[in-house]
Amino acid sequence: MPANLTFGVVGLGRMGQLHAANLNGAIAGARLKAASVDDEHCRRLEADGSAPCPLVDLDDLIDDPEIDAVAVVSPTALHREHIERCVAAGKAVFAEKPLAGTMADTLAVAAAVRAAGVPFQIGFQRRYDPSYAHARELIAEGAIGDIEMFRGITCDAIPPVDYLRTSGGLFHDLGVHDIDAARFLTGQEIVAVHATGAVLIEPELATFDDVDHGIVTMRFSNGGLGVIQNSWRAPYGYDIRAEVHGTLGKVIAEVDAREPAALYAGRSFAFRRHHLFVERFAEAYRVELQAFADAVRAGRAPSPGVEDGLRATAVADAATRSRIDDRWVDVA
Amino acid sequence: MPANLTFGVVGLGRMGQLHAANLNGAIAGARLKAASVDDEHCRRLEADGSAPCPLVDLDDLIDDPEIDAVAVVSPTALHREHIERCVAAGKAVFAEKPLAGTMADTLAVAAAVRAAGVPFQIGFQRRYDPSYAHARELIAEGAIGDIEMFRGITCDAIPPVDYLRTSGGLFHDLGVHDIDAARFLTGQEIVAVHATGAVLIEPELATFDDVDHGIVTMRFSNGGLGVIQNSWRAPYGYDIRAEVHGTLGKVIAEVDAREPAALYAGRSFAFRRHHLFVERFAEAYRVELQAFADAVRAGRAPSPGVEDGLRATAVADAATRSRIDDRWVDVA
Amino acid sequence: MPANLTFGVVGLGRMGQLHAANLNGAIAGARLKAASVDDEHCRRLEADGSAPCPLVDLDDLIDDPEIDAVAVVSPTALHREHIERCVAAGKAVFAEKPLAGTMADTLAVAAAVRAAGVPFQIGFQRRYDPSYAHARELIAEGAIGDIEMFRGITCDAIPPVDYLRTSGGLFHDLGVHDIDAARFLTGQEIVAVHATGAVLIEPELATFDDVDHGIVTMRFSNGGLGVIQNSWRAPYGYDIRAEVHGTLGKVIAEVDAREPAALYAGRSFAFRRHHLFVERFAEAYRVELQAFADAVRAGRAPSPGVEDGLRATAVADAATRSRIDDRWVDVA
Amino acid sequence: MPANLTFGVVGLGRMGQLHAANLNGAIAGARLKAASVDDEHCRRLEADGSAPCPLVDLDDLIDDPEIDAVAVVSPTALHREHIERCVAAGKAVFAEKPLAGTMADTLAVAAAVRAAGVPFQIGFQRRYDPSYAHARELIAEGAIGDIEMFRGITCDAIPPVDYLRTSGGLFHDLGVHDIDAARFLTGQEIVAVHATGAVLIEPELATFDDVDHGIVTMRFSNGGLGVIQNSWRAPYGYDIRAEVHGTLGKVIAEVDAREPAALYAGRSFAFRRHHLFVERFAEAYRVELQAFADAVRAGRAPSPGVEDGLRATAVADAATRSRIDDRWVDVA
Repeated sequence: MPANLTFGVVGLGRMGQLHAANLNGAIAGARLKAASVDDEHCRRLEADGSAPCPLVDLDDLIDDPEIDAVAVVSPTALHREHIERCVAAGKAVFAEKPLAGTMADTLAVAAAVRAAGVPFQIGFQRRYDPSYAHARELIAEGAIGDIEMFRGITCDAIPPVDYLRTSGGLFHDLGVHDIDAARFLTGQEIVAVHATGAVLIEPELATFDDVDHGIVTMRFSNGGLGVIQNSWRAPYGYDIRAEVHGTLGKVIAEVDAREPAALYAGRSFAFRRHHLFVERFAEAYRVELQAFADAVRAGRAPSPGVEDGLRATAVADAATRSRIDDRWVDVA
Repeated sequence: MPANLTFGVVGLGRMGQLHAANLNGAIAGARLKAASVDDEHCRRLEADGSAPCPLVDLDDLIDDPEIDAVAVVSPTALHREHIERCVAAGKAVFAEKPLAGTMADTLAVAAAVRAAGVPFQIGFQRRYDPSYAHARELIAEGAIGDIEMFRGITCDAIPPVDYLRTSGGLFHDLGVHDIDAARFLTGQEIVAVHATGAVLIEPELATFDDVDHGIVTMRFSNGGLGVIQNSWRAPYGYDIRAEVHGTLGKVIAEVDAREPAALYAGRSFAFRRHHLFVERFAEAYRVELQAFADAVRAGRAPSPGVEDGLRATAVADAATRSRIDDRWVDVA
Repeated sequence: MPANLTFGVVGLGRMGQLHAANLNGAIAGARLKAASVDDEHCRRLEADGSAPCPLVDLDDLIDDPEIDAVAVVSPTALHREHIERCVAAGKAVFAEKPLAGTMADTLAVAAAVRAAGVPFQIGFQRRYDPSYAHARELIAEGAIGDIEMFRGITCDAIPPVDYLRTSGGLFHDLGVHDIDAARFLTGQEIVAVHATGAVLIEPELATFDDVDHGIVTMRFSNGGLGVIQNSWRAPYGYDIRAEVHGTLGKVIAEVDAREPAALYAGRSFAFRRHHLFVERFAEAYRVELQAFADAVRAGRAPSPGVEDGLRATAVADAATRSRIDDRWVDVA
Repeated sequence: MPANLTFGVVGLGRMGQLHAANLNGAIAGARLKAASVDDEHCRRLEADGSAPCPLVDLDDLIDDPEIDAVAVVSPTALHREHIERCVAAGKAVFAEKPLAGTMADTLAVAAAVRAAGVPFQIGFQRRYDPSYAHARELIAEGAIGDIEMFRGITCDAIPPVDYLRTSGGLFHDLGVHDIDAARFLTGQEIVAVHATGAVLIEPELATFDDVDHGIVTMRFSNGGLGVIQNSWRAPYGYDIRAEVHGTLGKVIAEVDAREPAALYAGRSFAFRRHHLFVERFAEAYRVELQAFADAVRAGRAPSPGVEDGLRATAVADAATRSRIDDRWVDVA
């Protein structure tokens, strides 16, 4: 096992700060050296003293030969540029999803990563959640036989319209996690999708052809069927679940987004719930970064990789076109 | 409250015997006088002494002025004839679902029941299951606000191909219960459906254009979305669930198809499960018949009524056409 | 199977009315002919028209040759007299627990029942609850091997002090159900007990040497250990549970005192709960009476019988003496 | 916040290796410099190259001025010596429970720690388990009102008899965790105990007056009651649970010793379970050490401290004497 990996972080928004905090002591074999953020954000972090590490120019971060690996956590619109520059400089890259903001950029990023041949991991953290990981393990052991049907659901609180305007739409933002979970859990590719949607919460979404509720029906490479439900409404807290049916049984990766003690009071038996995905996945966010560091140090390819990122985006893209064109769309 | 209702039963297959057993002592205000079955079945019941009551000709049963109410539990293909004859004779009728085997017959039966003006109830027993009934109660109280999304699932063991050949297809046989549950729980009408399916278990289904797995996406009258999953595979026992999302929360009518004590052994924490819907719904089958008897004796209209039966069949019919034509189909 | 059993009921308080309602249509092979209640209560029931059947003098009820079976649901202080008179008259008797109000009376009743040789059942309805019945089934199948440890708990809302003054104390009133559950589930006898208690709710209990919280440690005939917790406080609804540990595993008869649909709202995931044992055990109260009627009609001995009632009272009596004397007490 | 804490570890058995692994990268603000183990064990670790850090003599470890803090994870019989030497040298100490192997040694250790005035934490890791921590939070918020009753249970697989011979007995080994949980969750002191036990598994325990099953009844400083059940039998995996009843409700710190995905197969609905407490408490072991490091670096007193260790041992000691003498024993 080589010596410690030295990390840089690009972007210090909510997710960037979370990854930086983990790199500051919670990831064995890793240390955080520097971060690069845009000027305005940089001034704010310096003013309130909340930067988790020295702040440097992006050029300096990329040129720093001590920095082995970069966590790219910048806004989606900048992903392509940042990932391409890092991999060109030979850095190992951990990138938050999605690879890029458009299908064209996504293909370009994937090509660049392949060409560079550097270690790369995409931030589909559900794969490192104990519940999803255990479900996959059971399925891989053959506990449910051959896969026949999948169901994924993600409901979350709606973000500001300005964020949604550039997010790529419901299936790119929420659905992509269910899409990756479907591929991860079933071990199948999604070959065709049919989607529908509705605007029930935020009428302004209609002005840029997005929806706040959506359902995607899908066909898998082995002939199985799947369905994904997405909603920007979860008044009771972040809500996810995956169910996989096979010839021998069914596995449920149950949302565990609840506090772990039961309260009997009033007239009910209740569990309080977490409200935010950063609470729900606190452990997964740490474990995925640990897995990345371990793989890089051991010379193994990290997972999920760039092809997983590409494939999930291709499905989300097909679902979005299906919803708009109202027809089955094959996934390229 | 009038005196006891005297019942006749038409048909003594599995469900007919179950209803007859309930009418023999478990339904207050009701007594079973006679049943009519086809000749061959009649001889068998007489031979082994297992008839739950005297067996008579259908004509005699219908002409018997003492018989106030008839439970029609004959094969689907005979539903239209039997229901029409009973209501024409002025009997109150409790009929197992579906109303009839084809859409045309279903419309005819509904017209006959309306014309006769007699009390009528269709056997959508989930409405009387404690879990579904309580879910409806919570929704009706406003606990989850306005309805936005529905999900229903029913998985069951596959019946013999010969039965399936005349059952009307997956959505008429399994899906119709989820369709009725969607209407019952949400209080909305289903206005359009898009369906897909796959043959994963029994290749012979393809010869009569049926499927063993199916997914139906639906739009509700209030703009909400829904999805139904059906499968003729449930190796772990009969499996159903309904989830309703609203602006304020979510209600789950959880399948309770498990034995009510937990076993910790081997390396697991487990509940044994029921294998058959007759076990799962033992209580609902009793309660629905009690509700029918109570309504008839009190002069109230029983529920769910003929319009509920008609509506559910219309949705199942639209889903079947959608699956075959691969397009959205409006529900008439 | 003989013809229908004709029942009389002695006592029409809350439990008497519940049993009478079940006998009026919900128990196959049984019909309710008459009830006897004290004069004042009789006038009230007649005044408001709420009697479930004709009201007669106790003498007439007992002398009525048509009445085959009597449900004794009178106040505990009258149990001995009523049971003794009924069994002397040759009636089959279903008696609510306890057999009598004192240990001496309990022994006398048991002797009278034995001498009369009539069918007799004591109202330990938990044995007929699906959860306890299934737990027993698992244990009898050997699913947990040999019994090593038991735990029972019952918490309920505190009744009026005047009721408690004559109830025999916490272990006779609440604990006796856990005691019977321990015997039923483990198949072992309780041979010695050590108990303690506290007055935390109702200071007046101290004036007649009773407690509102109590814990009983017990030794079983096979050397195993058990513990019972009782409390007159359950602000979240009636609360019971039994756990049995064996050499191979553990079974939990979980309280199911919750409505069967889950509600996600506010910040929690909750089940509403039943507040009263009459709701919790609605089904068990019906099933135990059905089992009694079936046994009597079939000529089998009903269960649990008079020895079960006697044994449970002997343990409750020993626990009460142990609590007061602060020492282990052997159960005679 | 001061710079990183440099740790030494004394003892590299199962728990020592677990703490060392956490100190090697998973505890922010901490690094592991050296460990001291006995000669034979040292040679084995060196032979198979599995030492997590340089191995040094105990004298050198204690004399090393760079080492700020020591995790004492040696055999119980050596705790007193090791803790006393470390605190005398001014090290901050994290010690696995118990403080020492006898009551006299425990009092001596506590006096030494108090006298040294160094930061000290005892390894009651349940306080850092998410379930117990959340239960405490709910109770501290007043969610269940005033405490009235407690129940704790711990069942685990039986260790070798040779280990048990020097472990101090069932209540010191297993029960002490329930005792600390009772104090932690209720916020009350245990003032008196009455215990009983049985030898059901390992007859040899009787030769040194130990038991493999035990029940402890307890009185709290506020008058409330509690009970603890302990067993060296858990064929279905490590099994713990705590329940706290108050005037307004009940909280359950439920064992979460199960894999987080549900499997429906065969005829059951099941969760696989963890078998070992090191799996069950993997997160708590990390979090407790992080809390210790954070407290030391921030100049706060770590918790639980030496008084908590002393108090729990005093209760376990009283319970052991109560079991042997068969009488209530006050906790000094």
